[in-house]
Amino acid sequence: MSETKSVGVIGGLGPAATLDFFDRILKRTKALHDQDHLRLIIDNNTKIPDRNAYQRGDGPSPGPALAAAAHALETVGAEFIVMACNTAHAWEADIRAAISVPFISIIEETTKVVADLKPERAGVLAVDACLASSLYQDALKKAGVAPVLLNADSQRTFMELIYRIKSGDTRDMVRRSMTTLARKLEAQGAEVIIAGCTEVPLVLTADDIDNELVNSTDVLVERTICFAGGELK
Amino acid sequence: MSETKSVGVIGGLGPAATLDFFDRILKRTKALHDQDHLRLIIDNNTKIPDRNAYQRGDGPSPGPALAAAAHALETVGAEFIVMACNTAHAWEADIRAAISVPFISIIEETTKVVADLKPERAGVLAVDACLASSLYQDALKKAGVAPVLLNADSQRTFMELIYRIKSGDTRDMVRRSMTTLARKLEAQGAEVIIAGCTEVPLVLTADDIDNELVNSTDVLVERTICFAGGELK
Repeated sequence: MSETKSVGVIGGLGPAATLDFFDRILKRTKALHDQDHLRLIIDNNTKIPDRNAYQRGDGPSPGPALAAAAHALETVGAEFIVMACNTAHAWEADIRAAISVPFISIIEETTKVVADLKPERAGVLAVDACLASSLYQDALKKAGVAPVLLNADSQRTFMELIYRIKSGDTRDMVRRSMTTLARKLEAQGAEVIIAGCTEVPLVLTADDIDNELVNSTDVLVERTICFAGGELK
Repeated sequence: MSETKSVGVIGGLGPAATLDFFDRILKRTKALHDQDHLRLIIDNNTKIPDRNAYQRGDGPSPGPALAAAAHALETVGAEFIVMACNTAHAWEADIRAAISVPFISIIEETTKVVADLKPERAGVLAVDACLASSLYQDALKKAGVAPVLLNADSQRTFMELIYRIKSGDTRDMVRRSMTTLARKLEAQGAEVIIAGCTEVPLVLTADDIDNELVNSTDVLVERTICFAGGELK
């Protein structure tokens, strides 16, 4: 048994994306026995207030609940914390203030992977609350990459798709609509597309588009395994 | 948002079975939004000592680690505890002694479902350590059902299959071999087959056999959702 670090996962934002993160962690970890896998403590915390509702002025801030979740994970042995959700990183400061262990940012790590591809423009598929916090826009600009966003109409369609995925609908129609949106960003000059919402990889794969897809879930999965000291398969 | 109870899940025994339990919980819960799903706090605790190795006299007891995991889950808000593993229920007493919230036993609940089918004989697919603790045998006999077990040779094959599944191998060959074992129990007179190891449903479905399959994972999933106050889909 290798001495890997225990990982605290703030999840439930939403649950399907958390399941997908867990699944990808297991698939990417080189393991023959149960004990070779990482210890993950996952708080599938569906009681954290809706991020987009808050951004619309339609509900309480998720900040305190996110900070409490992070703190609780540290309390029960998590040696570092990750969050299987891009948007909730708008409350990263609250989370970091509540813990004394490291926090790995999905935004920071995903942007690093994008920057390494050296595009001039990167398309961002992210929900309203994520865009309103300018998480990817700021990180990309700092890395010298121009962010490309959907127009208002397409962004509305995107939000409808995300809520459909959250309700369990990942049928072909949803897949095709998501591909259309990603291709719109390509048509607007994006040389790389960022799946900047952990629900997006549930319906969009690299094969669906012409350019490179940087899947924020996969980036976080790889960084998590490496930081924990596990072995990538 | 419905006021459902938070569920503590002792997992990692093994990780793929824990992922499967989580997946089935999401699929069986009636939910339109993230907030309609249950809060699950999952300790995918791969650092818990191997149950079968202990039974072979080849490692430490998992008891203290299981008790500590249960206690930690309660500490961070779990209002009841479940364990996505049959075998580890041999240490149920240690777990119950460490917590003040309810614990739902997969063995007890699965046996109830079997007893309701009123068979004379039920076949048990369970690992060596589970059989050595006589968990299902005792529970079935108490319910007036005679347990049917694999012979020594077939049980050895069963153990090999379980370790293959734990290593990520769920290919057709493994599926076919598991079906053959289940059918052997049918040939021995079992009118119901119990998938009494949470790795079994990863490769065996009700369609594979003639008689009824009682899947311990599905039983625990349904009982968990109901006990939490969630709605079944």
